[in-house]
Amino acid sequence: MGDSNGSGMDRRALLGGAALGAGLIAGGVAAAPQAAEAQVLFPKAGGGFGGPFGGGGSVAGAVCRSENDLYDCEVEGKLPADLDGVFYRVGPDPQYPKPPQWTMDIPFDGEGHISMFRIKDGHVDFRSRYARNQRWKAQHAARRSLFGMYRNPATDDPSVKGLSRGTANTQIVYHHNRLFAMKEDSPPVAMDPLTLETTDDYYTFGGGMKSLTFTAHPKIDPHTGEMIAFGYEAKGFYTPDIEVFSCDKTGKVNWSAWVKSPYTCMIHDFGVTQKHIAFLATPLAANQELLAKGGPHWAWDSSLPSYLGVMRRGGDGSDIQWIKGPGWMATHTMGAWSEGDKLYFDVDGAPGNQFPFFPSVHEPFDPKASVGRVVRLTADMSTKNPDGYGRETLFPQITGALSRQDDRYHTVPYRWGILNGGGWNLLDHQTGKAQTFTLPGAMLAEATFVPRHRNAPEGDGYLIGVASHMKENGRSDLLIVDTQDIAAGPIATVHMPYRVVGQIHGLWVPGDQLPKHA
Amino acid sequence: MGDSNGSGMDRRALLGGAALGAGLIAGGVAAAPQAAEAQVLFPKAGGGFGGPFGGGGSVAGAVCRSENDLYDCEVEGKLPADLDGVFYRVGPDPQYPKPPQWTMDIPFDGEGHISMFRIKDGHVDFRSRYARNQRWKAQHAARRSLFGMYRNPATDDPSVKGLSRGTANTQIVYHHNRLFAMKEDSPPVAMDPLTLETTDDYYTFGGGMKSLTFTAHPKIDPHTGEMIAFGYEAKGFYTPDIEVFSCDKTGKVNWSAWVKSPYTCMIHDFGVTQKHIAFLATPLAANQELLAKGGPHWAWDSSLPSYLGVMRRGGDGSDIQWIKGPGWMATHTMGAWSEGDKLYFDVDGAPGNQFPFFPSVHEPFDPKASVGRVVRLTADMSTKNPDGYGRETLFPQITGALSRQDDRYHTVPYRWGILNGGGWNLLDHQTGKAQTFTLPGAMLAEATFVPRHRNAPEGDGYLIGVASHMKENGRSDLLIVDTQDIAAGPIATVHMPYRVVGQIHGLWVPGDQLPKHA
Repeated sequence: MGDSNGSGMDRRALLGGAALGAGLIAGGVAAAPQAAEAQVLFPKAGGGFGGPFGGGGSVAGAVCRSENDLYDCEVEGKLPADLDGVFYRVGPDPQYPKPPQWTMDIPFDGEGHISMFRIKDGHVDFRSRYARNQRWKAQHAARRSLFGMYRNPATDDPSVKGLSRGTANTQIVYHHNRLFAMKEDSPPVAMDPLTLETTDDYYTFGGGMKSLTFTAHPKIDPHTGEMIAFGYEAKGFYTPDIEVFSCDKTGKVNWSAWVKSPYTCMIHDFGVTQKHIAFLATPLAANQELLAKGGPHWAWDSSLPSYLGVMRRGGDGSDIQWIKGPGWMATHTMGAWSEGDKLYFDVDGAPGNQFPFFPSVHEPFDPKASVGRVVRLTADMSTKNPDGYGRETLFPQITGALSRQDDRYHTVPYRWGILNGGGWNLLDHQTGKAQTFTLPGAMLAEATFVPRHRNAPEGDGYLIGVASHMKENGRSDLLIVDTQDIAAGPIATVHMPYRVVGQIHGLWVPGDQLPKHA
Repeated sequence: MGDSNGSGMDRRALLGGAALGAGLIAGGVAAAPQAAEAQVLFPKAGGGFGGPFGGGGSVAGAVCRSENDLYDCEVEGKLPADLDGVFYRVGPDPQYPKPPQWTMDIPFDGEGHISMFRIKDGHVDFRSRYARNQRWKAQHAARRSLFGMYRNPATDDPSVKGLSRGTANTQIVYHHNRLFAMKEDSPPVAMDPLTLETTDDYYTFGGGMKSLTFTAHPKIDPHTGEMIAFGYEAKGFYTPDIEVFSCDKTGKVNWSAWVKSPYTCMIHDFGVTQKHIAFLATPLAANQELLAKGGPHWAWDSSLPSYLGVMRRGGDGSDIQWIKGPGWMATHTMGAWSEGDKLYFDVDGAPGNQFPFFPSVHEPFDPKASVGRVVRLTADMSTKNPDGYGRETLFPQITGALSRQDDRYHTVPYRWGILNGGGWNLLDHQTGKAQTFTLPGAMLAEATFVPRHRNAPEGDGYLIGVASHMKENGRSDLLIVDTQDIAAGPIATVHMPYRVVGQIHGLWVPGDQLPKHA
């Protein structure tokens, strides 16, 4: 998760949403959806839906909605001649304004809009397309919003009963020649990686995946090429069931296990090592009272503990230990590995709720408690962990969110991490040193690591990501920064003529891994 | 002609170009084209090429280049529920930066980028596409500019010899179910009016058009549905020959005549009445010395007279009278009609050169002499016009360019005219009164008239056109203003999330005239 186009959380959107969230818990909202106005217009103010600027539509840069092709973008600086691949991005970009009773819907509920920068031979081609998922197609045909509140099916227009509610707006992954756009409440949407054409609006790995949901953050095993993934609420809305599974390089499911979460809560990311699987249950919990009132799926219940669930990878799940800990929140995995029976699981997290548009049950939202840092979780699977799981803050001076790593080091020990906050922070776990790239006047989206070449050492390459210039109506540049000296600033800048669609996460796919067609 | 996105002429672009023009005449430029840099980057300053802001590329909003689809644009205000049709626009949008020796190329040389707003049932869908003409395709494949200076073939890369140099960037017209994008140096490019797909990159009316060129301003006879057009330099580069012809509703050429211009000069528009055809030759003349130096096609030669050429429509052209007058300049037809043997021909024009990027031969560019007004030209074909043609300035208080009318009144007496300058001016020839719509802080592109309904009286309907907001990095709105009260401002505003591609001219096509497919 994270913001659509900003450095860390966007305070305007978060704080605007906080008050609305409290109102929802307290008072509830009207029930039946109404037909939208004939004309399309996003509200000028109020409500989190419509983007990180908190409403305002096209005028305020809160929505993009436009599917664009820019062949041969302008490039300033020195784009490495041998840089060959695609930088994909995805974020929520509301397809339609909500009917009046759901205008307080949250930014995370926007339809997934995927963009790509194809880089080769010193040229950059840009394209953006919505995922043509079931939701998008129904709304496109109706020319209006048909889905109500974030992950609350009772708020939908009756005409869409039975359709997937998935927005495909959170992250993309590339595996067995397919690009997958993912939202954790639904199966992935498959797209052509070269054209962004949607090829399957409800991908189930040929029926091999039984879960009704699929995480936005699967991992790829660098040794086997397997993709390891999970779904929570896997047996349907509100269920505590989790399916964890893997597929081989061809997409065939080759392992599956079922476990149950101690309570039904957001499990946004997970840890995968060569030996273990780890889930973190934190108090952003499904709340029946809130749902009945037409609220979003989650509420922050500070009375709940956290649980670190650790199980053997490849087993049947019966060995899972749910190790109790204090209530706190974490969203993204930086890296994870095992040494013998010991699990190391690095995440970004904070003492309290980081998403104020998800209402707090017991106390007001506390901005200070929402500040994220890198936290290392540990557990020893040779014991019952009677003292709970280990939890140590790393790089305490660096705050932010959207933690990443060199994606070639999924499941294995790693040295380099990335955290987005006050700039792009490149963290060296070996020396404990941090380097930061900042760009005053711009909002920096999440940075993605690009290896310098196929066999480059870990962390040797580039950080790539989008900067949006506030004084230019959000006009965007794609920045390429050399990890050998990130403070020196971009070695190349791709100038876009407009603000590109917002992003939660990005993905780099090397050119030699792309399909050969077209 | 006119500016790409502004109210009247853009002074920055014009004045920036003037000095360069003078330099060209004086000193000449290097000769052989070189391969472009691998990376694409427009110059940050200097030179007129790259848009009305005078260079600067994407960052300065000088180029767009992005082909976009925005389904269901945001609409504020009250879009008339029965408004049904397409507003098309076209303008030059440089596909590639020029190699170093041609960076002083003029804004008019950008490749034609067509955009459309499809309006129906209170919804607006936007699309923009380049015309895939021969030039665009060759440059797209090469990923660089291959054509040198504006209408100077000697400056081209050898690889494009024999290809049409046409940019299709000036105006569009809709006839026999085809959309034509036009540049006066080449045949029209045919496009699908619903998808903007290019269907013919060199349209010759099935071979019926013999001219090698085609005006950007054909007229449509409201009685017969015929399209009347002409081409100058019709027998090839630098020739004085003009073919004037018409085609019937199916596109079959049903009349053609050949005449010769007194000297080879820009004949951008023409007058067509039920009885007469009128051309105006003005001193923006082809200049061999300038062309040999790698300059643009035209130079302003104030020593030359003007000639109004009038001939019988439907004849063989042998009756043409070239009636001499003083040197002055005019670009666009507002309207034209005949009363018996008398021709009335309203244009916008100015005492001196209006395009300073076309060098002046004898004296410096004079901004004051470039200010345009509506001028009524008259000639009596029952006499030899021994005193020259009549020339009377109308609405002297209104200055501007890009004159238009209710397009249903081509060839016949008309009441309402439109002139773009300091706002949208709606001129009533019956009362002599002018109304003006202004929008401070925005640049207004040319206004196009939209009839309120199929049988609405002349001038009863809307002005439609694009406003670009300077404080929002040029972000565009499409405005719909009611001609019953244009000073009241837009009745509806279509909010775009970005600056849409620049425009020279626009065209409204009612929905009931569109093809039924797709």
